Amino acid sequence: MPAELIKAFELITPIPYAVITSLDAKGKPNAMGASWVTRTSIEPVLMLVSIDHSRYTHEGIEKNKEYVINYLTPEQTKAGWICGSESGRNGNKIKKAGLELIPSTTIKTPTIKDAQVALECKVVSTHETGDHTLFIGEVVAATINPQKTKHLYYTSDNRLIGMDEKGD
Amino acid sequence: MPAELIKAFELITPIPYAVITSLDAKGKPNAMGASWVTRTSIEPVLMLVSIDHSRYTHEGIEKNKEYVINYLTPEQTKAGWICGSESGRNGNKIKKAGLELIPSTTIKTPTIKDAQVALECKVVSTHETGDHTLFIGEVVAATINPQKTKHLYYTSDNRLIGMDEKGD
Repeated sequence: MPAELIKAFELITPIPYAVITSLDAKGKPNAMGASWVTRTSIEPVLMLVSIDHSRYTHEGIEKNKEYVINYLTPEQTKAGWICGSESGRNGNKIKKAGLELIPSTTIKTPTIKDAQVALECKVVSTHETGDHTLFIGEVVAATINPQKTKHLYYTSDNRLIGMDEKGD
Repeated sequence: MPAELIKAFELITPIPYAVITSLDAKGKPNAMGASWVTRTSIEPVLMLVSIDHSRYTHEGIEKNKEYVINYLTPEQTKAGWICGSESGRNGNKIKKAGLELIPSTTIKTPTIKDAQVALECKVVSTHETGDHTLFIGEVVAATINPQKTKHLYYTSDNRLIGMDEKGD
């Protein structure tokens, strides 16, 4: 990638950081850090996550057609980082991260306990974009912790920070 | 939308805010505020913008297959707000916003002068997602202002604020 473009992507941080929970082919939960996430429709309420073809989570969402977008709090920074930097293919990343899972309200994929916001999504379509797949998910339920004002953002120098509208 | 979901989307702000420049069918430049924007592939370098079917910009990008994602600075807050709250269908929103356009380096669609970052994109595919269309754009060039450390974010209470990793 040209140096100008690398710098451009550094400048447009910080960007919101979420942890995507999913189930693998055997029903085992997995969690992956993701910043390439956005809303994409008002009605129906759709979100999308862009996931690298090589990720273990990719296989799981392709198979089970559902996921949860969890926005973690500053207290969960280290756990969020582990979810973003290791693979769940070999071992239990969620346990290593010290995260506890709780049942979601409408889908089989669990939610991360104490997340600020968790959006339960059912996949309505998938689209290939270069080396990633867009999983378009209808938001069928949300769990919120209104007393938590901050969630994690990914920075230009590979850190996660908790921020709100007043800054970190 | 259920109250829980409205609150969930409020909690996950602030989110990065960009102004998308495009040309209409007659070649006239237009500018639209957008927060539903993310990267979606490493190689090729792809970005996506999710645009409501009713927007004037939708017609323009569909026709011309290119756009620029401009990240404005805190000095451009008012201009950014005008781009996000009015339509370019009737009148010259860019002039009203007091924005100056400069030629892009590789595509016909112009870049906003003094933006922190401008990403020039050529559309490689489009996908329908509910009431929006995803325009997937290959980033063919970037213009940056490295001395500008902040760009705009959209808040839960309908404001634009300039932020960096140290907060606003």
